[in-house]
Amino acid sequence: MEVILGVSNRHVHLTEEDYKTLFGDEPLGVVKELVQPGQFSSDKQVAIKTEKRTMEKVRVLGPLRSYTQVEVSKTDSFALGINPPIRNSGDLEGSAVVTIVGPLGEVTKPCAIIANRHLHISPEQRVANGLVGVDKVKVKINSEKATIFEDVWIKESPDYTLELHIDTDDGNGSLAKTGDMVEIIRY
Amino acid sequence: MEVILGVSNRHVHLTEEDYKTLFGDEPLGVVKELVQPGQFSSDKQVAIKTEKRTMEKVRVLGPLRSYTQVEVSKTDSFALGINPPIRNSGDLEGSAVVTIVGPLGEVTKPCAIIANRHLHISPEQRVANGLVGVDKVKVKINSEKATIFEDVWIKESPDYTLELHIDTDDGNGSLAKTGDMVEIIRY
Repeated sequence: MEVILGVSNRHVHLTEEDYKTLFGDEPLGVVKELVQPGQFSSDKQVAIKTEKRTMEKVRVLGPLRSYTQVEVSKTDSFALGINPPIRNSGDLEGSAVVTIVGPLGEVTKPCAIIANRHLHISPEQRVANGLVGVDKVKVKINSEKATIFEDVWIKESPDYTLELHIDTDDGNGSLAKTGDMVEIIRY
Repeated sequence: MEVILGVSNRHVHLTEEDYKTLFGDEPLGVVKELVQPGQFSSDKQVAIKTEKRTMEKVRVLGPLRSYTQVEVSKTDSFALGINPPIRNSGDLEGSAVVTIVGPLGEVTKPCAIIANRHLHISPEQRVANGLVGVDKVKVKINSEKATIFEDVWIKESPDYTLELHIDTDDGNGSLAKTGDMVEIIRY
């Protein structure tokens, strides 16, 4: 079974409340539709600020969500001087405190995580690919630095379509890039 | 079989000629002995310059060698705007052109590579661990982002001792760090 790969650079999800603090009443515009239906790269960027450093031009993804979350790589976390936990999206237990800086204001809260590798899938695709009752899979990257990623979480929703998400550390280490077809291996 | 891990940050090896261009007659001092016998982190740093960017404070490793080589990660290569090949150390075929900047001069030449994952081993250790006649192994990283690295080259020399070298992309992606014990898996 092969699926398309998306390598996620550091990015931010915002609640409506935090969005208003950062950008006021300006609408959140679409720059590019993402593979997951309804999700988009927006026309808004923020800075991520810690005591150690400020990272400029971090993209806000849309639409707005019920939680504010900053997704970084381990490499980013060293640069920022924070120690975010490895989490599935939306699970902010123990997340690292950062300040999100927009043109109109700032938000400081525990919201930074390193996202688990995960496979987006619809219920129908899960059935069709024999992955019902399976929580995790492995993924094989065939490249000059061939790599097997274990503990890849399956995330099912009627709103999802088949796509594997990894971060830039995993992508760059294995020489994999957005749009590559990668191999799913069952446990 | 378990071996100790060394995660290599970007670094530079220099010939005596290039060293003199950059630093003149100043001696190359030892800051810290590395795991490989005779190798050391030196008291000298250079900048790596490309058309796109300059990376400051890149460590020179000693002793001096018969070739000048800049080892970067894929992440570094994006920042620098270069496309270095994946190579074993000392194989500079197709390497990317960068400028190495020292306090007294600069050297511009094709010398930048992304190093293959590799296992240092002595002839005796190779025999003792049943790895004679084997070119490559796999390595398992047990972490919250468990990973198997394939195509890990075995580098044998009487001057080496057992140690696995990976770069910061592989280290950060798999949450592995210098000093970890990691598992060698045979093909």
